[in-house]
Amino acid sequence: MTTIACKGFKATGLHSGLKENRDKDLGLIYSETPATVAGVFTQNKIKAAPVLLDQERIAGGMARAVIVNSGNANCCNGNQGYRHALETTAAVAQLLGVPEKEVLVSSTGVIGQKLPIDKITAAAPDLVKTLKTDGFLDFAQAIMTTDTVPKIQHLQGQENGRPYHLVGIAKGSGMIAPNMATMLCYICSDVSMPQSLLQKLLSTTVDATLNRICIDGDTSTNDTTLLLSNGCSGVTLDRMDQAAGFQNLLEQLLGSLAKQLVKDGEGTTKSVEIIVAGASSDLDARTIADTVARSPLVKTALFGMDANWGRIIAAAGRAGVPVDPDHIDIYFNQVQMTRNSMGCGENAESQASQVLREPEFSITIDLNMGPGRASVLTCDFSVEYVKINADYRS
Amino acid sequence: MTTIACKGFKATGLHSGLKENRDKDLGLIYSETPATVAGVFTQNKIKAAPVLLDQERIAGGMARAVIVNSGNANCCNGNQGYRHALETTAAVAQLLGVPEKEVLVSSTGVIGQKLPIDKITAAAPDLVKTLKTDGFLDFAQAIMTTDTVPKIQHLQGQENGRPYHLVGIAKGSGMIAPNMATMLCYICSDVSMPQSLLQKLLSTTVDATLNRICIDGDTSTNDTTLLLSNGCSGVTLDRMDQAAGFQNLLEQLLGSLAKQLVKDGEGTTKSVEIIVAGASSDLDARTIADTVARSPLVKTALFGMDANWGRIIAAAGRAGVPVDPDHIDIYFNQVQMTRNSMGCGENAESQASQVLREPEFSITIDLNMGPGRASVLTCDFSVEYVKINADYRS
Repeated sequence: MTTIACKGFKATGLHSGLKENRDKDLGLIYSETPATVAGVFTQNKIKAAPVLLDQERIAGGMARAVIVNSGNANCCNGNQGYRHALETTAAVAQLLGVPEKEVLVSSTGVIGQKLPIDKITAAAPDLVKTLKTDGFLDFAQAIMTTDTVPKIQHLQGQENGRPYHLVGIAKGSGMIAPNMATMLCYICSDVSMPQSLLQKLLSTTVDATLNRICIDGDTSTNDTTLLLSNGCSGVTLDRMDQAAGFQNLLEQLLGSLAKQLVKDGEGTTKSVEIIVAGASSDLDARTIADTVARSPLVKTALFGMDANWGRIIAAAGRAGVPVDPDHIDIYFNQVQMTRNSMGCGENAESQASQVLREPEFSITIDLNMGPGRASVLTCDFSVEYVKINADYRS
Repeated sequence: MTTIACKGFKATGLHSGLKENRDKDLGLIYSETPATVAGVFTQNKIKAAPVLLDQERIAGGMARAVIVNSGNANCCNGNQGYRHALETTAAVAQLLGVPEKEVLVSSTGVIGQKLPIDKITAAAPDLVKTLKTDGFLDFAQAIMTTDTVPKIQHLQGQENGRPYHLVGIAKGSGMIAPNMATMLCYICSDVSMPQSLLQKLLSTTVDATLNRICIDGDTSTNDTTLLLSNGCSGVTLDRMDQAAGFQNLLEQLLGSLAKQLVKDGEGTTKSVEIIVAGASSDLDARTIADTVARSPLVKTALFGMDANWGRIIAAAGRAGVPVDPDHIDIYFNQVQMTRNSMGCGENAESQASQVLREPEFSITIDLNMGPGRASVLTCDFSVEYVKINADYRS
């Protein structure tokens, strides 16, 4: 296995005392040279302090570092929360010798509890001291909350014979829904690219990957995706027509992280792709896919390995977009379960029960109306999900 | 306790073999004289055969009987399903000596399985034979699926010294969400009222009661509410201005049934009223109340008796309507949890944890923006809900 690295970047993660156990809870990414930065943030009207600060700062176009804590969302803490976000960035900016306004910050954890800022400032020197080129895994571990595994992906591209790198790290296993900019996700790249192009590529790609997953239908107040690109590979991509290869890699990277997020969804035992075809439009298809992906009855049936297509068709019917109620075909992988909205019988049921035992499969809903198509990645809804979320703060 | 009865109506319920255990699964309501009928049906695009048939038939304005089976939804069964709905009504129409088109039908249970019509026609003679004036409880039992208790309410009104009666029966404990006409609900009244007025009162009242509850956010394909009014009390209410007392009783009746439905929601341990005040409009308030009421994270926190107001404010923020993120006040009963979107501290938390131990309480979200107000009745999301719905068909 090759080392996970991206030219000119260092990263780290450590335990500062925000989490009650000994797990890492503070992470830092640092670019040795100024990096162009793009960001996508939560669409929740309630935004955490670090989201508000980052939104202001990425308008400047450049970033040198990102500091992230887990265990506390620093959300709904009023002016004090905002000051604590500022102090967090100030602590590392000084030690790194970079402008404060080029340091970004994220927080993830419980909403409405005061951020223990002293623990963060106290840990800052160790954080900076432990930065290393292969520190991304430590960083990935430091930003986990209810995640059971770190989510990290590393890809290498080539442009005119020159290699360049993309490293992506994400976290999140609850409060995850479409209409978001995912939970927390950080991408480092060593190409050189103007900010407008970087932002455009990031927004487009997030919409096609991270915004197409659903764990529980709740959208976080802290969702943040940041892409830092520092040019250290010597590869320069200035225009859209030069960036096709990069965009493709970015889509692979975020697609992989999206899958990792769903696979590690709270209490999840299955990853299921909901594909809607034959809709009047892509937008209609997406509305239906989202509704099916979020239905508690569909998700509990998936957990129970029950080929209960009736719940799927019922969810499609309540999505609020036109469907022809008598011409819906449903498939579990390749197994056809309904033809013209009627069940295909016991043979199909028994074949489907095989599919449902697999950890990953697809459900296709063909509306037979038009060319519209969309897919969403979802997971099942387990007893464990309820237990995790009933006990989260206690 | 007075007998539950409504002049000129008889009801019954028995076991016909649709359910694998010995529970009642077939019910009948019969009016000795022609009754005016009003109905509200599911807004799901996928409608079960009996819903389609009832929608045609109530256009005729009169009804004599309603036959309801549980254990099978008769939905997604194509033309055969529709024929089976016709045959179900024909079987009792003949025995009762009433026109087929004045018999209505509902089905509730699993979607996409062939209705065992032979069992229904075979049981029809016994069904008619067992009709009795105090048979409403038998009927209420016969229409239960995952319900653990029958839902029934009886009210008496008076008009110019003459008493009249309202009896309401409802069922439903899963696939229940706003934007519906509830699960199954039947109301008998012995006043005389023109159909247009009856329909208007029913639609208005359903929207204010049954459409304001949420168990899991899924809307059934079979939701039906029927109101039959046969005039046997001798009370005649011909105009809106005469019907205020009746409307008030109807709202009490449906309000009570709505509460009974939520209280018996699948796996439920708590009934919680979500009140949104201070919104820009009533519609905005309702959108937020619905979003909070359906949030899996809010519902699992309620189950865990965790005063996690961060999840409530996060759900309010993602509802898609304007909120002022810095001026939201949240209360659990009278205990203020947030002021200007910030937590009120440990004392509030400990008082709130007392509230959360109660089986019924309210959560008020004051947006401090305008006069808009709405409330929705919801329940918690328990380990038991997942178990019930993972194993439903097996």
